[in-house]
Amino acid sequence: MTVVKRIKIVEVGPRDGLQNEPKIIDTATKVALVSRLGEAGLKVIEAAAFVSPKWVPQMADSAAVMAAIERLPGVAYPVLTPNLKGFEAAVAAGAREIAVFGAASESFSQKNINCSIAESLVRFKPLLTAAKAAGIPVRGYVSCVLGCPYEDAIRPEAVAEVAGALFAMGCYEISLGDTVGVGTPEAAKRMIAAVSTRVPLDCLAGHYHDTYGMAIANIYASLQCGVTVFDSSVAGLGGCPYAQGAAGNVATEDVVYLLAGLGIETGIDLDRLLECSAWISRCLGRVPVSKVALAKAASR
Amino acid sequence: MTVVKRIKIVEVGPRDGLQNEPKIIDTATKVALVSRLGEAGLKVIEAAAFVSPKWVPQMADSAAVMAAIERLPGVAYPVLTPNLKGFEAAVAAGAREIAVFGAASESFSQKNINCSIAESLVRFKPLLTAAKAAGIPVRGYVSCVLGCPYEDAIRPEAVAEVAGALFAMGCYEISLGDTVGVGTPEAAKRMIAAVSTRVPLDCLAGHYHDTYGMAIANIYASLQCGVTVFDSSVAGLGGCPYAQGAAGNVATEDVVYLLAGLGIETGIDLDRLLECSAWISRCLGRVPVSKVALAKAASR
Repeated sequence: MTVVKRIKIVEVGPRDGLQNEPKIIDTATKVALVSRLGEAGLKVIEAAAFVSPKWVPQMADSAAVMAAIERLPGVAYPVLTPNLKGFEAAVAAGAREIAVFGAASESFSQKNINCSIAESLVRFKPLLTAAKAAGIPVRGYVSCVLGCPYEDAIRPEAVAEVAGALFAMGCYEISLGDTVGVGTPEAAKRMIAAVSTRVPLDCLAGHYHDTYGMAIANIYASLQCGVTVFDSSVAGLGGCPYAQGAAGNVATEDVVYLLAGLGIETGIDLDRLLECSAWISRCLGRVPVSKVALAKAASR
Repeated sequence: MTVVKRIKIVEVGPRDGLQNEPKIIDTATKVALVSRLGEAGLKVIEAAAFVSPKWVPQMADSAAVMAAIERLPGVAYPVLTPNLKGFEAAVAAGAREIAVFGAASESFSQKNINCSIAESLVRFKPLLTAAKAAGIPVRGYVSCVLGCPYEDAIRPEAVAEVAGALFAMGCYEISLGDTVGVGTPEAAKRMIAAVSTRVPLDCLAGHYHDTYGMAIANIYASLQCGVTVFDSSVAGLGGCPYAQGAAGNVATEDVVYLLAGLGIETGIDLDRLLECSAWISRCLGRVPVSKVALAKAASR
C-alpha cells in the first residue's frame, strides 16, 4: 500500500451531522460539541452553516455558535455558505474558513440547491473572489460522486468536471461526497482516478456515507489511491436524509480505528472521541451509529 | 486489483449465528431458514452442529434439522463437529460435509474447547481419518486469527502453524476467523501472506466479524490477496459473544452488495436474501444487523 503516514480528518458532525436533526438543538450543546471535538484532537471541525434559516432552521444560530466557540490553537472551524450573502454573514461572525456545496448530479443540484450545476458555479464565483481578497480559504464539496437519489449512475467524468471547475475557481480542497452511500471500493477508485486528472490528489478529500456499510472499505480503497483527507461525523451524526433510519456520514470513531490499525497517525485520541460520541448521543437520546463505539461500550 | 470473477460465500447463519441465540429456536424455523437461504442462491449453508447439548443447547435438535431440510441440487450443508463421536452422529444424521474448529490462540483454545491447540489437533486426527475413509470433506476453522478476547496480538506465524497443520491433516479448506472483529485490512493481509506459505490461497476462506465495523474492508483487502471464499451470516445473526450488544459475523447481505459492486459473481439473489433476512429477524424479534438491509428497508 502507498505509505501514507498522516491523514487529516475533517469532522463534519456539528454542521453536516446536526443539520439533519429534526429537533432544534440549543446553542450551548452545539458549542460544547465543537469544544469536545477539539479536545479529542480534531484539527478541522466544520462548526456551522450560514444558510437561509427558512431552509435549514437547525443552523439559524450559527452566528451565536461562532461567537461562543473557544478556538484552540491549530484548529480550523470552517463553515458552509451557499453564496456571497452567506459568506459575508460568516465572515462577520468570525469565520476564517469557508466551504461551498456543489453536486455532480444535475437532478440533485436542482432539488438540493435549486439551480443547475453550471448556475451553482456562477453563484460561487463572487464568493470565491471575495474570499480570495479577504485571504479566506474555501473548500469545495461535490455531492453524489458515486450515485444520486434522483438519477442513475454518475459518470466519473461528470465528477471530474465539477471538481476541476471548483478547483480552478480557487477552492484549495475538493471533498468528494458519496451522498447516498451506494459506492463500492473499485467505483471509488475509478472516480478518484478521473478526478485526479483535474485536481491534484493531495487536494482531494473522501466524504463517504456508510448507508450501505461500505464507507470504511471505500476509505481504505481511497488511501490506496493516495487520498490523504477524509470527512467523518462523530457518532455518525446526521443519518441519511434519503432513507429515514439508515446510516449517513461514516462515524469518526470508525475512521480513527481503521487508521490506527493501518499505523497511520491522525493526532486524535480515540478514548476522548468515544466520550464525546457517547455524550452527544445521550444529548440526542440515541446510541452512536458507530460499531467501534458500540463494541467499546459493550466490552466495558 | 486481482481479477476474481467468482466468489464462494459460506453461509454460517443457521449454525454459527443461531448458536449464540439465548432463546431456543424451534426446529421448523431452523429448517425454514436453511431452505430460504438455499432459495436465495447460497451454495454452502452450514446447517447444524453435533456438539454436546450441555454446552450448546441451541444445537440439540441438529439431527432433526438435518433430517428435515430439503436438499437443493448443488448445495452443500456442512455441520460442525468437535470430535469422532460428533462426526459419527453427524454422518448418521445424513451430513455429507463436516467442519472442525481450532484456534490460533492458546488461551482461547483452552477456554473455548478445553484443551491446548496441540491437543485439539490430536483430537481431530481420528475424525479426519474416518472422514477420509467415508469420502467426507472436512473444513477447518481457525479462530482468533487477528486478535483474541483473552490475550494480546496473535502472531501471523501462529495462525499459519495451526492452519498448516489442519491442511496437512486433510482439511480441504481453512477458514480464518477474526473472532473478536478487531482486525484491520493491512493486518489481515499480513496474516494471509503468512498463512499462504503453508496453505494454498485457493484453499483459504476469510471469516470476518464486523464488531468494529472493519469486516467489509477486511474482505476487500483479502480479495486483493487472492482469497476467493468468505463466510458470512444472514442478517448478521449471532452477535458478538465477547461483547454483548456488539456486532458479530458480517452480514451476508453486505458481502453480496460489496461483491456485486466489484463486479464479482456470487450467484446470490440479493432481493431474496433480503427477504430471508427480514423474515428471520422478525422471527427473532429484532432488526437485521446489516446496513444494506436497513438502507433497502428505509428506502422502500
